[in-house]
Amino acid sequence: MYRSHTNGALRIEDVNKEVTLAGWVQKTRELGAMTFVDLRDRYGITQLVFGEEHLKIAKELGREDVIQVTGKVIERESKNKNIPTGEIEITVASITVLNKSKTPPFTIEDETDGGEELRMQYRYLDLRRNPLQNALKLRHKLSIEVRKYLDSIDFFEIETPYLIKSTPEGARDFVVPSRMNEGQFYALPQSPQTFKQLLMVSGYDRYYQIVRCFRDEDLRADRQPEFTQIDCEMAFVDQEDILNTFEGMVDYLFKKVKGMEIEAFPRMDYATAIEKYGSDKPDIRFGMTFNYINEETQNKGFNVFDQAESVIAIVAEDCSTYTRKELDKLVDFVKRPQVGAKGLIYVKCNEDGTFKSSVDKFYNQDDLKTWADKCNAKAGDLILVLSGDKAATQNQMNVLRLHLGDELGLRNPNVYAPLWVYDFPLLEWDEETGRYHAMHHPFTSPKKEDLALLDTDPGKVRANAYDLVLNGTEIGGGSIRIHDRAVQSRMFDLLGFSKEEAQAQFGFLMNAFEYGAPPHGGIALGFDRLCALFGGQETIRDFIAFPKNNNGRDVMIDSPSPIANEQLDELNIKLS
Amino acid sequence: MYRSHTNGALRIEDVNKEVTLAGWVQKTRELGAMTFVDLRDRYGITQLVFGEEHLKIAKELGREDVIQVTGKVIERESKNKNIPTGEIEITVASITVLNKSKTPPFTIEDETDGGEELRMQYRYLDLRRNPLQNALKLRHKLSIEVRKYLDSIDFFEIETPYLIKSTPEGARDFVVPSRMNEGQFYALPQSPQTFKQLLMVSGYDRYYQIVRCFRDEDLRADRQPEFTQIDCEMAFVDQEDILNTFEGMVDYLFKKVKGMEIEAFPRMDYATAIEKYGSDKPDIRFGMTFNYINEETQNKGFNVFDQAESVIAIVAEDCSTYTRKELDKLVDFVKRPQVGAKGLIYVKCNEDGTFKSSVDKFYNQDDLKTWADKCNAKAGDLILVLSGDKAATQNQMNVLRLHLGDELGLRNPNVYAPLWVYDFPLLEWDEETGRYHAMHHPFTSPKKEDLALLDTDPGKVRANAYDLVLNGTEIGGGSIRIHDRAVQSRMFDLLGFSKEEAQAQFGFLMNAFEYGAPPHGGIALGFDRLCALFGGQETIRDFIAFPKNNNGRDVMIDSPSPIANEQLDELNIKLS
Repeated sequence: MYRSHTNGALRIEDVNKEVTLAGWVQKTRELGAMTFVDLRDRYGITQLVFGEEHLKIAKELGREDVIQVTGKVIERESKNKNIPTGEIEITVASITVLNKSKTPPFTIEDETDGGEELRMQYRYLDLRRNPLQNALKLRHKLSIEVRKYLDSIDFFEIETPYLIKSTPEGARDFVVPSRMNEGQFYALPQSPQTFKQLLMVSGYDRYYQIVRCFRDEDLRADRQPEFTQIDCEMAFVDQEDILNTFEGMVDYLFKKVKGMEIEAFPRMDYATAIEKYGSDKPDIRFGMTFNYINEETQNKGFNVFDQAESVIAIVAEDCSTYTRKELDKLVDFVKRPQVGAKGLIYVKCNEDGTFKSSVDKFYNQDDLKTWADKCNAKAGDLILVLSGDKAATQNQMNVLRLHLGDELGLRNPNVYAPLWVYDFPLLEWDEETGRYHAMHHPFTSPKKEDLALLDTDPGKVRANAYDLVLNGTEIGGGSIRIHDRAVQSRMFDLLGFSKEEAQAQFGFLMNAFEYGAPPHGGIALGFDRLCALFGGQETIRDFIAFPKNNNGRDVMIDSPSPIANEQLDELNIKLS
Repeated sequence: MYRSHTNGALRIEDVNKEVTLAGWVQKTRELGAMTFVDLRDRYGITQLVFGEEHLKIAKELGREDVIQVTGKVIERESKNKNIPTGEIEITVASITVLNKSKTPPFTIEDETDGGEELRMQYRYLDLRRNPLQNALKLRHKLSIEVRKYLDSIDFFEIETPYLIKSTPEGARDFVVPSRMNEGQFYALPQSPQTFKQLLMVSGYDRYYQIVRCFRDEDLRADRQPEFTQIDCEMAFVDQEDILNTFEGMVDYLFKKVKGMEIEAFPRMDYATAIEKYGSDKPDIRFGMTFNYINEETQNKGFNVFDQAESVIAIVAEDCSTYTRKELDKLVDFVKRPQVGAKGLIYVKCNEDGTFKSSVDKFYNQDDLKTWADKCNAKAGDLILVLSGDKAATQNQMNVLRLHLGDELGLRNPNVYAPLWVYDFPLLEWDEETGRYHAMHHPFTSPKKEDLALLDTDPGKVRANAYDLVLNGTEIGGGSIRIHDRAVQSRMFDLLGFSKEEAQAQFGFLMNAFEYGAPPHGGIALGFDRLCALFGGQETIRDFIAFPKNNNGRDVMIDSPSPIANEQLDELNIKLS
């Protein structure tokens, strides 16, 4: 045992105790013949006092050296109210240097001087910093509480295999050559989808798993090739049961982990979300919903609006004082290729009841008043208008709305607004391949009342699918699954599978449906993202101990890397 | 909601309630105009009674059909004391068949008529059987309790990556070609060893993870290419701290999961284990320890013993009545190539004080009495003797001892005898490659008092390594690690790494040791095996939801399988 206490443990009541502490040298200060050292570990910081007898060794202590000291707890003269151990210090009787440290390439402080690349390379040092320790501690706490909650309502955690089978549907698989089965490959799971459904067929009734998933996609910022999911499935349930169960879980997590009470989660159907927010994951921490002002803008000589499928307006409250420069920045913002709007029209609702717009040439004060009325804009507000093809304009306006939300401070990361979005379309048409894709996945069930549309207008069929959205981010999604072989088979037809392909890839599941498959459904929550949101952060990287960079590389261990020719030979593959 | 109650919920107090149940038809019985159906789910079985009005539909119900019924709870006339719902039944008012089932290829009963291969193919049906449901329930319970215990003593569960780097040391890696990094590969972890050590360098102090690990080995019976490990690491600890912590954990698991109290775990050093049991994982549920009777057997004209390095005897209590046939079977057993003994000598200690041996030609009654005295054999016992090269004979005698333990019923799976084995050798000499291998792994620290031997006699160096053994099975192993760059570098030298190889493969770890690495150590427990032992079973397969067969195949999903040429092209590999 290297220590009698951690560095976060000692209090004024411990004065006069003989203790042994171990940890890292956070900093040293000299004051006359005395040296003060802040000793750090995961639990806190304790101040050590070295007298003259240790002068030499104390002077040589450097940042991040690992030491062990024995000494007596005494009351501090100048107390530090900011830390729990701030009333005491240790007069050191003996010291052992357990391991010297070279000078770290960046400071181990909350705000460090190290750049992203350097910190990734020395991840083991970056992980010493408080923000990362807190992030991983939060992650641990969340995983413990998720399990407690699900265990308390009779869910079993059941592990599913990581070496499974490659299927072309969906994202790209990572594959694993099999040495024992020449020319054949395993795939790493993109999710345990089919296995959890089989567990329902097997009667496990309530399954969950906090599980790693893998997708070989080109990595956008803040995507990882491996990510963690809270994966759940229930039998004998309908959509309402699942929404209630997992609303209960997220509620519980807010209470246990953040001490917050969340009121009942609002629910919104997909069509409304798109209509009002231009997004299937609206951030409802703020309003600024869409107003369709086609009628109010037609036939006044402004061709842009006259020819537009949709004219959409949002209201930025109390922003009529925006300067020309600020408005120009908004125009530039929406014109960026990532947004793609052709222009942006504004109307200032002046405090005196007049209006000032960028289309005054075409619209008089009365015209603009009808816009303001339609949008419920009041004096002092700013109306912003985009127009064009409906879907594109909704999309652009969504980006503008979120941008304004950020600018106006309406997206406080410490305010939490969850939302269920439901009634997603079952299929989406892919222009490129000229066929339908499953919007969620091929196992999602169509809504009963839309079944007839499967033959006449498949794109209109709604699914028993739902997403859990938190602050404009999708943190989970799921569906009631198909549990009938004929419906599943029909679904594969629609997705362009031949009977043979469907049988070869998913025959095991369709066969299972013939042996007493219960109605079932589930959900999967992105755990990395959930942790980041609970931590009030935008990026997931700090909530993963050893993340990869945007090229899928771990720069610390330098992976991936070439392997030996003998390994390739054994696997019966070669590089091309 | 498809049900108001599960099939395990209703009791006599619920009589007269209107309820809705759903589940699987376990069996149907006709009695006059009535049909009785046992309805099953994970929670239990409830008896349904169908009257004449449902005659047709009830008659058509088959095994494993999924149905939903509504009806009234009534008191049963003939109560079934064997199940918790045995006092009530449901008179069915309405029934919905949710999904018909084909006749399963084997019976869904505790003892099934299905063969291994068929059950693996229809794993989702096999998983419906009680023994498997109980196994996975036990596994869930164990994982929940492991986490509770470790969380309660400040361990953080921290997830480490699955896509890591291939290293030639140890078993064969599964590798994953990287599409984004041409010609390069990830490896799946054989364990998170280096990452957990880095977490100690990062100051996380106490880490654990219930984590999947992968080894591409030729599969012996009861080995899986992917397996689960309870992986743990602690900083600022010595061996004693780790032994106490995890003895505490296993103790807690016995209490919580099996309601059993285990007394303090005995400890035995490696040398003693080999000397007394011929095994580094002795089953101490029974005695029958080794007696070395070289001295007592020499120079009586029996060449076999005279020339043997070791003559080892064990005592089978109360077995002097073994028949010729029984003894011959033992001789045959030890002569099998898997055991490899040349022969087996016996001495019957008759009840009348005389001896009868298979070497009476060479040894008289007085001689045999000295053997019996040395072995503490009493009248009625049977002494069995093997001889030859010491290590080989110890090994053979270990197999014989365990075999006799089985035969004599001394290895009751419901009796639990844990044991710590410690002071393992650091290195073992490999004749084939002509160099030392790490017995545990290259990160295990040598014992301080043996450090000097590293230069003079490396094979004699003992390691700070320990195994947790339960009933003759190793369920965990660990060590105090090296935390000093120079010692780690010396270790790689001994293992035949060039400086360049060591730096290329483990440079990140050795570099980390230069930035303030604390003393640390850990342990990993085989979770599949632990579950099987807690379940009183020998094989792990029933404790894994979707195991692979001995060719590493999942015969249910038919994996591994060929992949498309486009996938190979994208990965820049081809088949050879």
